[in-house]
Amino acid sequence: MPLSSSDSPKCKILVDAMGGDFAPQHEVLGALSALNENKSFHLILVGDDEKIKAIAKENNLSLEGVEIIHSDEVITMHDSPTTALKTKQKSSLVIGAKLVASGGADAFVSAGNTGAVAAAGTLLIGRLPGVERPTIGTYIPNLKGITTVFDVGAFVDSKPQHLVGYAKLANVYVREMFGIQNPTIGLLSVGEENEKGNKVTKETFDLLKNSNLNFYGNIEGRDILLGTVNIVICDGFVGNILLKFGESFMKIMKPLLKKTADANFFDKIKIALSRNAIRKTFKVFDPNEYGGIPLLGVKAITIIGHGSSSALGIKNMVLKAKDMHDKKLIAKLAKEMNKQ
Amino acid sequence: MPLSSSDSPKCKILVDAMGGDFAPQHEVLGALSALNENKSFHLILVGDDEKIKAIAKENNLSLEGVEIIHSDEVITMHDSPTTALKTKQKSSLVIGAKLVASGGADAFVSAGNTGAVAAAGTLLIGRLPGVERPTIGTYIPNLKGITTVFDVGAFVDSKPQHLVGYAKLANVYVREMFGIQNPTIGLLSVGEENEKGNKVTKETFDLLKNSNLNFYGNIEGRDILLGTVNIVICDGFVGNILLKFGESFMKIMKPLLKKTADANFFDKIKIALSRNAIRKTFKVFDPNEYGGIPLLGVKAITIIGHGSSSALGIKNMVLKAKDMHDKKLIAKLAKEMNKQ
Repeated sequence: MPLSSSDSPKCKILVDAMGGDFAPQHEVLGALSALNENKSFHLILVGDDEKIKAIAKENNLSLEGVEIIHSDEVITMHDSPTTALKTKQKSSLVIGAKLVASGGADAFVSAGNTGAVAAAGTLLIGRLPGVERPTIGTYIPNLKGITTVFDVGAFVDSKPQHLVGYAKLANVYVREMFGIQNPTIGLLSVGEENEKGNKVTKETFDLLKNSNLNFYGNIEGRDILLGTVNIVICDGFVGNILLKFGESFMKIMKPLLKKTADANFFDKIKIALSRNAIRKTFKVFDPNEYGGIPLLGVKAITIIGHGSSSALGIKNMVLKAKDMHDKKLIAKLAKEMNKQ
Repeated sequence: MPLSSSDSPKCKILVDAMGGDFAPQHEVLGALSALNENKSFHLILVGDDEKIKAIAKENNLSLEGVEIIHSDEVITMHDSPTTALKTKQKSSLVIGAKLVASGGADAFVSAGNTGAVAAAGTLLIGRLPGVERPTIGTYIPNLKGITTVFDVGAFVDSKPQHLVGYAKLANVYVREMFGIQNPTIGLLSVGEENEKGNKVTKETFDLLKNSNLNFYGNIEGRDILLGTVNIVICDGFVGNILLKFGESFMKIMKPLLKKTADANFFDKIKIALSRNAIRKTFKVFDPNEYGGIPLLGVKAITIIGHGSSSALGIKNMVLKAKDMHDKKLIAKLAKEMNKQ
């Protein structure tokens, strides 16, 4: 007799409580807040047992039904990813990823060292069959909605077949998670014309053109914010530089406006008056709104958060993981990558 | 008897009057405005003779002392650079570059097709001895002043020795033009640590470390706007994408603010009130302020303008060319590149 859906085991989401610049505070509060909003998953927190319990107590939050797995070590933002995976076996990240790998959880959520989370996903959780290189994507707001960019730093020196792999994974992801049936895919280059680009993008262009994907062609740097395509494909070297450049734009906005304000009394008043409206405008660029960024191509749902994630950011990551699980994302990615 | 400085021939600046989206209008008005401000150079305009004269007449401007060289053809923004140089021999760009190459002018100023101007500089004006690849730089405002970025699209697939060449050229340029005695040079990469980067940047890191340049080390995307170094070195593929991404940030600012304004009446009033202050803040990002971007490594001063250059932009380009000539930039670049 098949199990009815009410009998099927609950989705298990594991949160690395020690990842992130404000761990475990933001991690515990965010994860419990997600659980409070959506009770239909099982929450596992991996981290310092005492600290986790203290945070819950201080905030009058119940840990009933929450599984806590104690860990002694922490992989920091300064650790070398692959070295740390080997030397810090008792870290929340390694313990967590291994539990996911063994089937003890369905999803892995961490705002820790991005490189280390990506390495843990690739090496410990493992790649899906047909995936040579997993990829990290990011969301960049455009005038119409959201542009997704793959890859933003999982790997550098990508070969043409890797870039095509990123496109296939991203295609399934954007279709399932954004409900866009046949997302447009653009290849990031230095000119729109087919023959523009470097050696790798020129070869990739031909592969994408002959694929079943909805390939738009080459796009330029400006097309990301203009929203010319749904998915932008690039090597992780370029994607990572772009991502950090874009983030810094938001960071200098405030001091730049302050400079104008300090130079002129009337400008000071005007800028002070409009501060909230300006803040509201730039809220679309806040990474906490998007629930982390996905690592695609590994055997379990893996979400990486910004190091500075707020509790809201962590909550959104956990809810995103639940959504991915409900949409059977991993099975759909596996099916796509197994096709030849 | 040596010539006294008053006897030395005047600096000759050649302006491609047909380059740019608003040519020849902005080109003629901008060049004449520069001449009006600084009479100590000889102005050569290459372009449609009738149109140039008509614009001067309409604006009650004198063409006295201005040399006009007629050209029939125009290389457009859509022309393939190297093909256009061969097939459009009567274009203002080819005629102008050839005149500069023959010694008929000291500086070449064009807001035309960037690729075609770079190709004309490289192939017609020619490279300085010791220069394998010329480079185009750009200015990006940072919190403290200006970050220069080389290369932003002259060439892609740069090898480590090319990137070191860009650094040497940029070092002389920033030292002479910005008066920074020993400018700091950062290598754009995906992490600050020495071992981070792709294959090309890792090799370049070692070459720069062992050079006489003031090498800061690797920098990340965020360091450009933070102003961590004076000079950022990268391959033209990355630089071009960054440049266009950055420009588009400024372009979406207005519609993004409008979106906030349209959603709420009070925000509309606040944003309307602060519009001028916001505009003032972002003025630092206006390319017209900077007088074009230099092509370094060729035998004559070559300045490339944004296609949308205003008359003020063209004027600033001409004055910048005069400044480069006064500072004997080409001789200093030649000396640096001839050292081994």
